[in-house]
Amino acid sequence: MNPMKKISGGVCAARGFLAGAAACGIKSGQATRDDLALVVSESPCAAAGTFTTNRVKAAPVRVSMEHVKRGRARAVVLNSGNANACTGPQGLEDARSMCDLAAARLDVPASGILVCSTGRIGVPLPVPRIAAGLPGLALSRTGGKAAAAAIMTSDTFAKEFAIDMKTSRGSFRLGGMAKGAGMIDPNMATMLCVLTTDAAISAPALRSALRLAVSESFNRITVDGDMSTNDTVLLLANGLSACAPDPRDFAAALGEVTRALARMIVQDGEGVSRFVEVEVVGARSERDARTAAEAIANSTLVKCAWAGGDPNWGRILDAVGYSGIPMDESKVGIFYDKLAVVTGGVAAKTSFEKLRAVAAKKTFKVTVDLHAGRASYFVWTTDLTEEYVRLNLGE
Amino acid sequence: MNPMKKISGGVCAARGFLAGAAACGIKSGQATRDDLALVVSESPCAAAGTFTTNRVKAAPVRVSMEHVKRGRARAVVLNSGNANACTGPQGLEDARSMCDLAAARLDVPASGILVCSTGRIGVPLPVPRIAAGLPGLALSRTGGKAAAAAIMTSDTFAKEFAIDMKTSRGSFRLGGMAKGAGMIDPNMATMLCVLTTDAAISAPALRSALRLAVSESFNRITVDGDMSTNDTVLLLANGLSACAPDPRDFAAALGEVTRALARMIVQDGEGVSRFVEVEVVGARSERDARTAAEAIANSTLVKCAWAGGDPNWGRILDAVGYSGIPMDESKVGIFYDKLAVVTGGVAAKTSFEKLRAVAAKKTFKVTVDLHAGRASYFVWTTDLTEEYVRLNLGE
Repeated sequence: MNPMKKISGGVCAARGFLAGAAACGIKSGQATRDDLALVVSESPCAAAGTFTTNRVKAAPVRVSMEHVKRGRARAVVLNSGNANACTGPQGLEDARSMCDLAAARLDVPASGILVCSTGRIGVPLPVPRIAAGLPGLALSRTGGKAAAAAIMTSDTFAKEFAIDMKTSRGSFRLGGMAKGAGMIDPNMATMLCVLTTDAAISAPALRSALRLAVSESFNRITVDGDMSTNDTVLLLANGLSACAPDPRDFAAALGEVTRALARMIVQDGEGVSRFVEVEVVGARSERDARTAAEAIANSTLVKCAWAGGDPNWGRILDAVGYSGIPMDESKVGIFYDKLAVVTGGVAAKTSFEKLRAVAAKKTFKVTVDLHAGRASYFVWTTDLTEEYVRLNLGE
Repeated sequence: MNPMKKISGGVCAARGFLAGAAACGIKSGQATRDDLALVVSESPCAAAGTFTTNRVKAAPVRVSMEHVKRGRARAVVLNSGNANACTGPQGLEDARSMCDLAAARLDVPASGILVCSTGRIGVPLPVPRIAAGLPGLALSRTGGKAAAAAIMTSDTFAKEFAIDMKTSRGSFRLGGMAKGAGMIDPNMATMLCVLTTDAAISAPALRSALRLAVSESFNRITVDGDMSTNDTVLLLANGLSACAPDPRDFAAALGEVTRALARMIVQDGEGVSRFVEVEVVGARSERDARTAAEAIANSTLVKCAWAGGDPNWGRILDAVGYSGIPMDESKVGIFYDKLAVVTGGVAAKTSFEKLRAVAAKKTFKVTVDLHAGRASYFVWTTDLTEEYVRLNLGE
């Protein structure tokens, strides 16, 4: 029997977590859709976070980094419609005000509030609108879906995933919500994710588990190679299950949830019509494999070919070549799913029709074997469509 | 009086150079348009070349690198429709056969022939078609335009430029042809360029002048961030002007011609509607300035905004941030032409209408001032349009 079971819900799947959303009109002043979300634990939590490595960090990222350092948190407040990025000292003050407002609403210290923003860059955050909307935000055990919907920007569906995990030390639940769409790149893009669990686990253990899980999920995804100023993944553990799981069990559960949410982000990339796993194997080092995999996944020309359902390999080999890793072209093999398209650096004998059938699918895998060693690395990516360009022509 | 005068023509502008083209049906077997070009000097030339830094090098690149090492050459043979890249040992043999055929046609040693190919990757070069087409290729003093047209792939116009340069040591001419379109990235993309001069200059002097000129022209251009397997710039000097110019005069002339051809390549990028110079100033080092400039110029989101005529700056600042260079966000200034869009890391007071008027132009300049030092670097790039995606959906 599989000890891991998918259950419904997201941030409220674990015991003791409440959530809710409200419409504040953050972007336009017109409160037509929910754009503010709150996730709260009934009791104090151990907390951990990972953040964008962009040198330009949005104000909420800086405030959350500061607050999560203590290893404890009680709630997360999030908004869409405004990224509060590139907003100077006023932006920092505004992010703190957002924490203060949530703290007052919940009657907890502001230092226990983590904050996330996503949306337009460079526009001051309309704090009075948030202040006006917050009292109308109703928290409940069933508010997770509304919270997941409120943080959407160009996402087309709300992203939630949760599991129940049985272990020899008892069972616990872990769930979360995420938003993605554009600006998705390894090392976290405009993506926000809030994870909650009722496992009993210390802040340092939470931190190292989160670091590993993110490196195997959110840091593997790329839609357009642009890394955002606001990326944040937060994990809160309130211990209400009374289960203190073995670290390996917790890592397995966390990996399951973060991978599921990461896949949803890629599948919902702006204008996306294909989900492609790119794996580079037979590399001298994982670093080489990663460099090559990311060069392929971020190649404009490779992505355009996929949009056309073309099992192109010249552009793939070209991208491996300019990635700069040492390679022997004459040894390279390339596969679409299990079908060889390149063997020994030249076109394989596989019929074009068979290859085209793979590239026409919504989901396929491209494997590049460098035959240079035993290291490998994969990323999840997408095609690049005319629709993507249309969606990003400017605001 | 300006000692440098633009004159008509390209590879045949300098004394003693002949050129011509022929239709061989290299791509499809149907000889509907010229796809083979030959450029020849009446007398032996000093020669230099720079080539793609892609680890995957097409067969003609390898053969030309080998031949040009001697510092002497007599002719260049080029084809479009087939890149002869990723074609294994057979590809190398085919590239050598192409040199042999041209050598036989011209009655000169094959080691004096340089060779270039552009077009589809991974398809064997149809050498018999080239052999069949070569005898019909007519060489003349007026064949430069036909040669420039024959090497076009998705280019929309033939690229030629030439000048006459008067110096205290006499006058000489320098001209050239180029092709570009897609796969254009710094360090040379699918771009081919043949330059000819009647200046009297040694191979070592030619080599260092070419290296400098390429670093200031073709290595500054980026359309899609994809670097090709076939990039080649060749320079032949036959000395027939009897002018042995001062190296500074020669560098000035070479810079003028290479910059002009590089600009044409960007202006004719696939689906391009904007030509944008991106300059990063106030950097601690040229390396930092270059890293930031290239991150901006290759950002999918920045380029999409330009396609929409949006004077976007959040995406620009974001790209500088993820480029990884050390920076203080609160000091950054960004300009569209002379208009400030960001001052001190936040939105400037310039009216949106004025900024939009700049971004609506066909050609504008974006300057990013890091206020961190005195180094700078510029690149020439384009927007990213739906038309680009459409053109690259696969073949």
